[in-house]
Amino acid sequence: MKPMPLLLRKDQERRLLAGHCWVYSNEVDTQATPLKDLTPGAPVEVLSDHERWIGHGYVNPHSLICARLVSRERNRPLTPALWLARIHDALALRERLYQRPFYRLVFGESDGLPGLVVDRYGDLLGVQFTTAGMERVRGEVLAALEQVLKPSAIVLRNDTSVRELEGLAQGVETILGDPGDALILTEHDLDFVVAPITGQKTGWFFDQAENRTRLARYGVGERVLDVCSYSGAWGLRAAALGADDVTCVDSSHSALERVADNAQRNGFAARVHPLQGDAFEVLRALRDEGRQFDTVILDPPAFIKRRKDEKEGVQAYARLNRLGIELLAPGGLLVTSSCSFHMNRDAFLRTVQQAGRRAGRFLQLLETGQQGPDHPVHPAIPETAYLKTLFLRVLPGS
Amino acid sequence: MKPMPLLLRKDQERRLLAGHCWVYSNEVDTQATPLKDLTPGAPVEVLSDHERWIGHGYVNPHSLICARLVSRERNRPLTPALWLARIHDALALRERLYQRPFYRLVFGESDGLPGLVVDRYGDLLGVQFTTAGMERVRGEVLAALEQVLKPSAIVLRNDTSVRELEGLAQGVETILGDPGDALILTEHDLDFVVAPITGQKTGWFFDQAENRTRLARYGVGERVLDVCSYSGAWGLRAAALGADDVTCVDSSHSALERVADNAQRNGFAARVHPLQGDAFEVLRALRDEGRQFDTVILDPPAFIKRRKDEKEGVQAYARLNRLGIELLAPGGLLVTSSCSFHMNRDAFLRTVQQAGRRAGRFLQLLETGQQGPDHPVHPAIPETAYLKTLFLRVLPGS
Repeated sequence: MKPMPLLLRKDQERRLLAGHCWVYSNEVDTQATPLKDLTPGAPVEVLSDHERWIGHGYVNPHSLICARLVSRERNRPLTPALWLARIHDALALRERLYQRPFYRLVFGESDGLPGLVVDRYGDLLGVQFTTAGMERVRGEVLAALEQVLKPSAIVLRNDTSVRELEGLAQGVETILGDPGDALILTEHDLDFVVAPITGQKTGWFFDQAENRTRLARYGVGERVLDVCSYSGAWGLRAAALGADDVTCVDSSHSALERVADNAQRNGFAARVHPLQGDAFEVLRALRDEGRQFDTVILDPPAFIKRRKDEKEGVQAYARLNRLGIELLAPGGLLVTSSCSFHMNRDAFLRTVQQAGRRAGRFLQLLETGQQGPDHPVHPAIPETAYLKTLFLRVLPGS
Repeated sequence: MKPMPLLLRKDQERRLLAGHCWVYSNEVDTQATPLKDLTPGAPVEVLSDHERWIGHGYVNPHSLICARLVSRERNRPLTPALWLARIHDALALRERLYQRPFYRLVFGESDGLPGLVVDRYGDLLGVQFTTAGMERVRGEVLAALEQVLKPSAIVLRNDTSVRELEGLAQGVETILGDPGDALILTEHDLDFVVAPITGQKTGWFFDQAENRTRLARYGVGERVLDVCSYSGAWGLRAAALGADDVTCVDSSHSALERVADNAQRNGFAARVHPLQGDAFEVLRALRDEGRQFDTVILDPPAFIKRRKDEKEGVQAYARLNRLGIELLAPGGLLVTSSCSFHMNRDAFLRTVQQAGRRAGRFLQLLETGQQGPDHPVHPAIPETAYLKTLFLRVLPGS
């Protein structure tokens, strides 16, 4: 498909030249190059109003982000050769960083592949196409992934609401091999069962793997509370570090079945206790029972999915963190996360600090973790940095 | 010394109640409690305009920050018992985190001891009193340190310009034992010679120890450039990780002598090369020679010491980072730091990203490190978070 030109309005190229790769619909000179004439996903060449050539990309006239740059080299248009090169680059980084083949292999814009997410579970790939532009070249991209990684199975995890913004249908589909119901993933010497087809998101939260490893640095003590535990990745890490009594709280019965299964599998069944219920209710009940923990881990789903949820979401983070802090023993460790892009790290720290004050406790911030390096941040696109994980100590005397 | 009352003006207690511990002179009701009647360093009880009791602290009528809270418990005034308790709390954190007794033991406000910095080098303590309030109780604090840590030597490293803001003289003084000219510090299996009396700052940059350890996660390749190397802590870490050819650049002849000595001591003499000169000039020369490096480490002194230096400082960071990026081989690693509080992390990342664009290279941010956990951040005092260390990969095709 031959790329059509997409002309920007006067002075609208600056952000792109500075490194960003999104074009908003109000930046396009729609008189010269009407967006409505373009098919969703079609390739374009983005040009300034002076016809300065900026890059190859793709469009979606129905989306607020109406185009994304993919290549800034004129002789590298959107072809199979480009996908191959980008996937090789992405793999080189992960092979440098990881001993085992379990990681996010492609993280969209940050890996020069906007609209594509690939998780690697050994020989199985979980793939997500989130834009019409990537959907259009899906066959080429999958062929490139097969060529580079030779997977035995590929599952499309296109069950994500972001596809709706692009006018794409949601669904899960196996397109190569037999993924089976479950596979075994190894995260730093612990084995976990993962359901590549039915698990949350793409099945595993790789983005927290690095932060879980950091628990070893701080130690967890005897009694650990893992809130919104999902399959127990945090809780089992705590057990591996010697915690005697790990309580994993989740609202999902099937997630807690997996916690029990994973605990058994790693020899921690006697020390890991699943507890089903709403996080807020369970924490209140534990507080009212006078329970205390040496480490409290709070890793909830995003409370602020859209800008308009901000106020309510901040309050939810404040409430959850206050409850978590109230459950901490003197000198205890709070590990608290937010994966809401709309809550930036300063706002999150402020929220947690104020929750501490309301609980009458003083906190020291020991470290601020972020998503692991298999989710690199595109330095010109703040939206690619979303995860904050704070490690705080409650001052003993407070 | 009996504490005098210090009344705040109407509605000026909010920040303190929210957790901060600084009182600015314009927040004080100087009609009710004239600052000029108070001796620098004298203890005070801070009260709201409604005479709500807020905390014990100390004053300095000559400083913009005219008082600092030290205790929020009415029955815990500024006595030797308080210093002992706070030093015990600080030590408990470090003993939890460090295998060896080399760390910052007390980090001012963040450890509930505003105006006090203590570095621990085994049996030697390097101590800094930065406020008149701490200076006044210096004898009590030193006695508490002796009681808890039983050091064989204590050096006062009061050669810091921040003392001038408090009207205190600068100087270095040995007040216990014989510190000698040099001692051996162990940082994660490498030995370094430290000069506790004549070295920069308090002799060692403990705040980067954690980030240096992180180099192992990313690997450094064969050719490494360590800019503003001081005693070679980064460069030798790179050599320990297998780098063949490490160039340590510093403007100080004595620092580079120490690099050579430290390289020898750890068996890396053949692989570590000191290079004296101004960082900017040396980097330009290396670029003009066509040299390339697999890893470039930029760890300069603060380019923005005061708010008014901001513009010039940002330009200096931009220039240094551009030069560093130009020297990177494809796929290379940039480890770049700013210890300027006045450049926040977002501004620093933007500066580095733009330097990359000017160099025609694209960067991926893999991790943002900060000061190690022996320099905890006080979550209500942004000034206690100052160090940013970015780990970035240059995209291979860029």
